[in-house]
Formats: sequence, structure tokens, C-alpha cells
Amino acid sequence: MTVAGAVVRGTYQDSVRLMRIGEELRTRAGVRSVGVVMGTPANLESLRDVGLYFEEASSATAEDIVIAVDTAEGTPPETILAVVRRLLVEPSHSETSRFATFPTTGAAIRNAPQGAVGLVSVPGEHAPRETNLLLDAGHQVMVFSDNVDIDVELELKTNAALTSAAVFGPDCGTALIGGIGLGFVNQTHSGPVSIVAASGTGAQAVAVALDRIGVGVGHIVGLGGRDLCDEIGGATLLAALQALDHDPATEVIVVVAKQIGLLTLGTMMRVVAELSTPIVTCLFGQPDAWVTSLVGAHPANSLCSAATIAKTVLESLPHQRPNVDLAVVDSYRQSLGPDPVVRGLFAGGTLAYEATQILRPLIGDVATDESAASGSHGVVDLGDDRYTRGQPHPMINPSLQADLIRDQLGNGKADIVLFDVVLGHGTHACPAEILAQAVMESRDRPQQFLAIASVVGTVNDPQDLMYQQEILANAGVAVQDETSSAALLAGFVAASEGPQVPIQVVDLSAPPAVINVGASWFAEAVSAQGVNVLHVDWHPPAQGDAELADILDSLT
Amino acid sequence: MTVAGAVVRGTYQDSVRLMRIGEELRTRAGVRSVGVVMGTPANLESLRDVGLYFEEASSATAEDIVIAVDTAEGTPPETILAVVRRLLVEPSHSETSRFATFPTTGAAIRNAPQGAVGLVSVPGEHAPRETNLLLDAGHQVMVFSDNVDIDVELELKTNAALTSAAVFGPDCGTALIGGIGLGFVNQTHSGPVSIVAASGTGAQAVAVALDRIGVGVGHIVGLGGRDLCDEIGGATLLAALQALDHDPATEVIVVVAKQIGLLTLGTMMRVVAELSTPIVTCLFGQPDAWVTSLVGAHPANSLCSAATIAKTVLESLPHQRPNVDLAVVDSYRQSLGPDPVVRGLFAGGTLAYEATQILRPLIGDVATDESAASGSHGVVDLGDDRYTRGQPHPMINPSLQADLIRDQLGNGKADIVLFDVVLGHGTHACPAEILAQAVMESRDRPQQFLAIASVVGTVNDPQDLMYQQEILANAGVAVQDETSSAALLAGFVAASEGPQVPIQVVDLSAPPAVINVGASWFAEAVSAQGVNVLHVDWHPPAQGDAELADILDSLT
Repeated sequence: MTVAGAVVRGTYQDSVRLMRIGEELRTRAGVRSVGVVMGTPANLESLRDVGLYFEEASSATAEDIVIAVDTAEGTPPETILAVVRRLLVEPSHSETSRFATFPTTGAAIRNAPQGAVGLVSVPGEHAPRETNLLLDAGHQVMVFSDNVDIDVELELKTNAALTSAAVFGPDCGTALIGGIGLGFVNQTHSGPVSIVAASGTGAQAVAVALDRIGVGVGHIVGLGGRDLCDEIGGATLLAALQALDHDPATEVIVVVAKQIGLLTLGTMMRVVAELSTPIVTCLFGQPDAWVTSLVGAHPANSLCSAATIAKTVLESLPHQRPNVDLAVVDSYRQSLGPDPVVRGLFAGGTLAYEATQILRPLIGDVATDESAASGSHGVVDLGDDRYTRGQPHPMINPSLQADLIRDQLGNGKADIVLFDVVLGHGTHACPAEILAQAVMESRDRPQQFLAIASVVGTVNDPQDLMYQQEILANAGVAVQDETSSAALLAGFVAASEGPQVPIQVVDLSAPPAVINVGASWFAEAVSAQGVNVLHVDWHPPAQGDAELADILDSLT
Repeated sequence: MTVAGAVVRGTYQDSVRLMRIGEELRTRAGVRSVGVVMGTPANLESLRDVGLYFEEASSATAEDIVIAVDTAEGTPPETILAVVRRLLVEPSHSETSRFATFPTTGAAIRNAPQGAVGLVSVPGEHAPRETNLLLDAGHQVMVFSDNVDIDVELELKTNAALTSAAVFGPDCGTALIGGIGLGFVNQTHSGPVSIVAASGTGAQAVAVALDRIGVGVGHIVGLGGRDLCDEIGGATLLAALQALDHDPATEVIVVVAKQIGLLTLGTMMRVVAELSTPIVTCLFGQPDAWVTSLVGAHPANSLCSAATIAKTVLESLPHQRPNVDLAVVDSYRQSLGPDPVVRGLFAGGTLAYEATQILRPLIGDVATDESAASGSHGVVDLGDDRYTRGQPHPMINPSLQADLIRDQLGNGKADIVLFDVVLGHGTHACPAEILAQAVMESRDRPQQFLAIASVVGTVNDPQDLMYQQEILANAGVAVQDETSSAALLAGFVAASEGPQVPIQVVDLSAPPAVINVGASWFAEAVSAQGVNVLHVDWHPPAQGDAELADILDSLT
């Protein structure tokens, strides 16, 4: 192995351009392997891993280009290094000059029309500065760059809210805004289904599947992988849903993500409940995501089913309303006052589990044992082994359930009590009577309370469903057919505000221009779609001098 | 508080009967509270918790009844205790004698017709003995009792397999076999949808919802809460699916559970792929459960949607075939030999995640970083931050993906390589060429291998979907439209055998009789349905003497 190399000091090229130079070198006779990278510690480490390290490389900095070649015997490495030097001084967009190039983001902004979109792909540590420049000029920005801290992401989205713009990303790979593809995006037919995605390839897979089954794609709003964390609270998701709900061309919205923070899921449920556009949710790594079905969403479990469900919704399904009447929720909220405490007292274990899954995103922590501290939410499964050892099951003997209702409501420990009444052969002859009695006896307490019950039974059960429902209703219990609806009602009445998120504004109109800050690769991809591109031939600020960079931005 | 009590030694009554005595006492004048329990440590602790402890109670054993009363002043506790003693000597089924009563399970078995069903509700520690007696006589058994160890559950199901019977439970609350309800079960209309449930109230909720929307219920096979753990491997689930698939009256099967072990999910996928009856899976606490959709199941995310989806399947959906051709799978399995190693090399992060979710249940552990040891399965996301720092994204530069294909296949590290090829604006101009080349170069190795790719793109993408697919197919790559289908193919070809489970046999014909061992409450509930009941007035073996119990069983 004959490794030789050179360090070109104080010269920056983006990774795509360096990759292309490397590719060109590899085709030359006598070259066995080659590395052309910026001299960051990580890149130098990679060179070492593949046996392309040379002594001078140790002196390189992140602002220097490092070139290393391994040549066959008889090929002097100097000839190859000379080729690199020549390639490096050629203009970086030699292949095409379909777009104007500017030395700084400031210069491009001064030449850009109103309502342009920024596309930032500089290394992560430099992305916030360029993004803020674009936001301050009123442009929304897609941040392709990754390796950006999450607290910086929140700052960017807060700044976007102040400028009535929006940030897609960081780490956003795919967007399609007003028909213009940014980043990695497929050429699909235009149509009525729009996609909001915390996952770039997830969005691409759904868009491609829609196209394959003959359904066109409207917009794709990329969020970046962390927008749905509770730290960010879905700031871009919520802005995207509002914009798409008002977009006359969007008839169905598909939300794609692997996971979503629990509190962000709760916020999303409250927003979805009031949307007028049908929505398909594909949150396929999240076991709680099915709860969105209770507010009218159509949950898809997989990328492939998201497209087919969206098609079905588009063609044949009426818009589903939430399983709860929002006016009724409001009136209960007013009568109970702020921060009501919810306690679930269940005879059915699966029903307790289902209720907990629904409550958690809406009201936060829900304890699932008796240890729930006073003033905090809890759900207990009274059929659990620890309650039934030596005791009949609560479906045979509802007295423990009744005692706990009396204790929770009568003693002011809970403001909302949620319980199930399970009928059928083998269960108590008239459970509603015993449970209704417990609710009635609690009416003496001074504060208002809300008792919600689901009755699991049929009209042919020995206890008669209608009769049991009537007994409960006469005691002032809000009776629901399904435990899920009962839990949703409790959750909406007790819902906390959820994380406060910056209110960004997503603009879906076709951008008159794209300001590309970073890899010229993306400028080419956008320009190839016939869009006006202002490309910034970005270089890192000399020696990281931000003040000098600001002066350059204002002068050039 | 005036607490008095008594210990009635060597007398056993089931908890339901003790509850009824307690209820009767509470209605008497002067009684403020009352406890009537077997003298187990847990029950004595409960008495202490509610302030009903008295000195003599400390001497009670689990075979003694402990009675404690708190009476108002002027009501001598002795009069209440006298009432209890009288109630205790009354025959335990005084309310009704619609069924024959036997002193031991052995005696009932000798008088039972062939094909009866056992219903065991004795305390957990005694349930295995009674269950085995019933199994040995060829009866299948529902074990309502909880507090049974999981290794004992496996022993019971192994014994059931030997006797060509089946065990529903332990901790099985609900079953409906041949129209006869056992445990807690609703009176629904008879019909074409049968339910298999690891959750009693889950089954009840689905049955009731079906009844409400006008769909009748066939059988309900209860599994007990732990049948789907990998320790048990779905032993009763698999027997139930086989029986229901052969039941001419069952047109749709609904499987209900909160969770399922990953390997058991894999076994279930392989079984579902070969069922001829459509199946709805409601495994609503399990994020991976959507994978059942790939083998033709219709996944429901919630109890309430399970019923509506079952109705839709029943009325309008054709039976879905698996997303993979089982004959093709078999031929690849034969050509690759045993235990092929799978490596996924993805440019798309969400696609890598989706593939991992599909592979895990089928092939077991899948490492998600490069650290996958030689000979073990792994999936890597090459778009992850750690690969893209200073490097173009693999969707721009597929050379890393190609290098890894060459390394994994060419160097014999993997037998199956699974990768994605993502097309569109902003991605490499011809990724298939580079990746196909890597596959071709690996053909030199002596062993057979399988390369599977999904191409994410459209025919209008700059790279042209059809052209890219053709390049890959010409290199012998198995090309799939969806990443999910690609991963399913890899998973089925490399699938391990999964947990070995005892092969039980579920009999769905209407039982000519029910042998009820334990609470007379359930004998009454079954008898009320017009079924012949043989009730065992069960008592714990004196001093736990199993040998004596065996003798009694054979004599009485």
C-alpha cells in the first residue's frame, strides 16, 4: 500500500462535491482507493479506519480539505494529487449554471423574492445561523442538516413563530410544497392527499404507494425526526395540520411517524377532533396511537396500509366525528372547575388497560395501583390477583368497586370517577343498583363531580342492558356504550393544556424561488424542476468568527 | 367499635358463598360491618386493614372460616355469630338444586358423559390437581382460578396435549363453547364470528359490540392472560385457531389480547399465513402487531374497532392472501440451507425500522448497529447521523451501501441481504446500477445467497422505477414493491422454528355436561342456561394431604 496525501488549507467544499471529486479520481488508472474529506476529527478517524491516513493529516482542521490516495506501483501519487488540486479550483457548479450563485446567505436573501423557501444543508453546527437569517427575512425554511441539538431546534421554531414562518426539520429529508420538491422527493401525480411526516423515507414510501394505486399527492410537509417529541410538542405538526385543513386542494391528510410523545399525542387528539379534513394517522411504532381513532382519525398500522386507507377514506368514507360531544365536554369542564382528578375503578382488566391508554396522552401520568397520591390520576383493575385472593371477583361482587366510588367521590379524593359495569351469565344479578347507590350517596359532598360508566352487556343478558343503563342514568351517571368513549369523555373533560408550542405558520403556496444554502447538489435537483434557485456557495465562517460572518453577510 | 369474632375450624366454603353469608349478615339490624373469610394470611391481613381483627383470628389456618362482626351498641355480637353458624351448615346450594352435587372431582368424573367440559375455580394452588384429573379423563378444562405459576400452566397444557384435550386458562374468565357460556359471558345472538381471547373482558367487549351491530357470535375460546407469553408460546391460541379454521359455522376469527410475546407473534404469523378463515387481530397494546396484516390478517387497534372490522370482513372483504408466496419461500429455504443469516442495509431510516419490526418476530434478535456479531442477524440505517457526519447521505451516494453488500455477501457474513433503493429528485442518478454491481461481484462465493431489494420510486422519477427494477432483477435480486414485503420474504425464508408448544386439541362441539369444580355460583350460572351440571362441592385436602385426597377421589 502506497498512501500519499495533501492538506489544502482554508478551503471548504460540501460533502457532495468532495464525493464527486473522489468518484472522478477512482476512475483513473493506478488509483486503488481514495479519500477526499474536510479535516474534521470524525473524517480523519474514518481515513484511519480504511488505511488512508498519512502523517500531515494530523495537522488538518475542519476548515481544510484532506486528500489521500493509495496508488498502484508505478503510479506516482503526485500526479493524482495534482488532478485534485485542479478539480478543486474549478467552479463548483461547472456542470450547470442554471442558477445564480451568491457568496453569502445575506446576499441571496437581498436578491430573493418574497415568500421564497430556504433549504439549508450546511453542517449541523452552522445550520441555526443560516436558518435564522432566512426566517428573519420572512422565508420558511427546510433544514436538511442533522446533528442539531434539540434545544436549538426549539429556538429555531420559536423564532419561526415570531416571524410568522415555519421550520421543517432539522434532519428533514423530504418536502413537497406547492408542487416543488425539496430534498429527496418522488415525482408523483398531483392530487388530493397531503402528507405530514416526521420521517422522510416514510413520506416517500406513502407517496409512492399512493401514486401506484392511482391517487395523487398534494403537499408533503416534512417535520424532522424530533418534532413529535414532547420537548418540541409537535410545533411544526400543528402548524402543518392547520395549513392543510385550510387548503382547498387537500381532501385527506396522512400523518406519518414512527413515534410520538405522549403529551404531543394528546395535543394532536384535541386538534384532530376539530379538523374538518379527514385524517389518516400512521404512527406505526406507537402502541397508543390507535386512540386517534376516537377523535375521528383513521389509524393505519403500516406504511403500506396508510396509502390504501387514505384511498378508501377519499373515495368512500364519510368524515368521522369524534366519539365525544365537544359541547358536552365544555359544559362539564365549566361545572367541575380547573384540574379535576380522574380515578378509574374497573372490574375488567382489559377495560382498565384500554382506559389508561386513552387517558395518559390527555391528562398525563396515570397511576395504575392504589398508590396514586391524593390529587393525582389513577386507574385500578379490581380483578387483579391481589384483589381476588380469597375474595370473589368484582364482577360477582361489586361491593369493593362501590366502596371505592363512595370513598373517592364522597371524600373528595376524585372529581371524575370512571367505572365499568360488566353484565352476562356468571356476573352479579344487578350491579348497576349497587354502583348507582354509591354514586347517589356521594352527592352530599359540596363540590360537583362527574361519574362516567360503560355498561358491557346485551339486552338479552340476565341483567338486561337497558335496565342497567337506566338505573345508572337515573343516578346522574354519564352512561356510555363503549369503555373507550367513557375514557375519552373523562380525558377531554380533565385534559391539561399540554406542552406550549411556538405557533408557526406554514405557507403551502408554490414558492417563487428556493434559496439553497449548502450542497449545490440540492440546488441542481430543485433547478431541474424548473424552479428559480438562488444558490449560496456557503463556506464556514473563517476561524468560526461569527462577527466577521455577519459583516460579510451584510456586505456581499 | 365492638368487634367480636369466631373461628370455625376445618370447614371450607368458597369465596362466593362466604360473600353471600356476609351480605345476609349486613342486612341485619345492629350490624355495622362484617367479614367472613377463609383464614389465609392474606385474608387475615385484610381484616386487620378494615379494623375487623380479633385475638383468636391469629390461630386460624387456611382451612378455617373466620367470622368478624362490628355491632352497634346494644346488639350482642354473639347473636350474629350464631346466625353465621346456622348459615354455614345449610346446604351450599340451598337456593337451587338443579344440579347433582358430588363430594370429589373423581366422583363427578365417574358420573359424567364423554366430552364434558371442566370448569375449575378452586384456589390457585389447588387448581392444577383438579385440572389434571379432568384432563386424564379426557375432558377439556377451563381454569378460572388465578394465582397459578406459569411453569405449572405449561405442565397443564402439556398434559392436555397428551390427552388430546385443551386447557383454557388459568385465569380464564370467559368462554363460550358450542353455545354454552362458562364463567362471565354475555347472551349474544349466535352467528359467524368467533373470538379467541387472552382477555376475558376484552372478549366480552368485542362480543357485545358485535351483537350491538347485528353480528352474531359463534364460539369464544378463552386462553388465559399468559397463553401468548413466549414461555407458553400460544399453545392454546394455536389449538383454537386450528379448531376454528375447521369449524364450518365460523366465517371470521377475532383474536383479542393486550400483548403477545415476540416469538409467539412469529409463530402466529406462520400459522395465519396458512389459515383459510379470515382473521381480525386486536393486539392493541403491541406496537409490532400490525405485522399480522402482511400475512392476510386485518389488524384492529382497539376493542371497539375489532367488531366493526370483523363485520366489514364478513360482509364485503375478500380473503386476503399473505404478501409472500409460500412456495417461493420454500424453494429459497431449500437452496440456502439451515439458519441463514439476514443483514438489512438501508438508506431510509423508517424503512430500516419497519423491516426490523417485521423480522424480529420471525427470526429472533436483530441487532440494529454494526456491532452485530458474525453469524447473527442485523439491520443498519445508513442514513443515521453517525454515517452522514461529513459524508453525503447514502441516498446521494450509495457506495457505502454497495461496499457493505459486497462485504456481507462476498465475505460470507450474511446469506440474505435486504436493502432499499430510494429514487426521486435529489437522490443518486442510478443507484440500482451501483448496488446491482455489488451483488454481481459477490456471486463468486461458493455458497448460495439471496439478495432482496425494495425500490421506492415512481415511473416518473428521474431514475425511472421500471428501469431501476430491471437492473436489479437482471443481477438476480428479488425485487419487491414494498419494503414490508421484502422484509417478510427475508423473514419467512430465515424463520426459525419458534417455541415448541404442546399440541392441544380444542373441541368446539356443545358439551353434554359441565363438571364444575369450585364455586357453586358458576354451577348456577351454567345450569341457568339449561345445561347438565355436575357440581363438585370441593374442599381443600385435609391438612394438604394429597395422598388422602387421591384415595377420597377414587372412593367417593
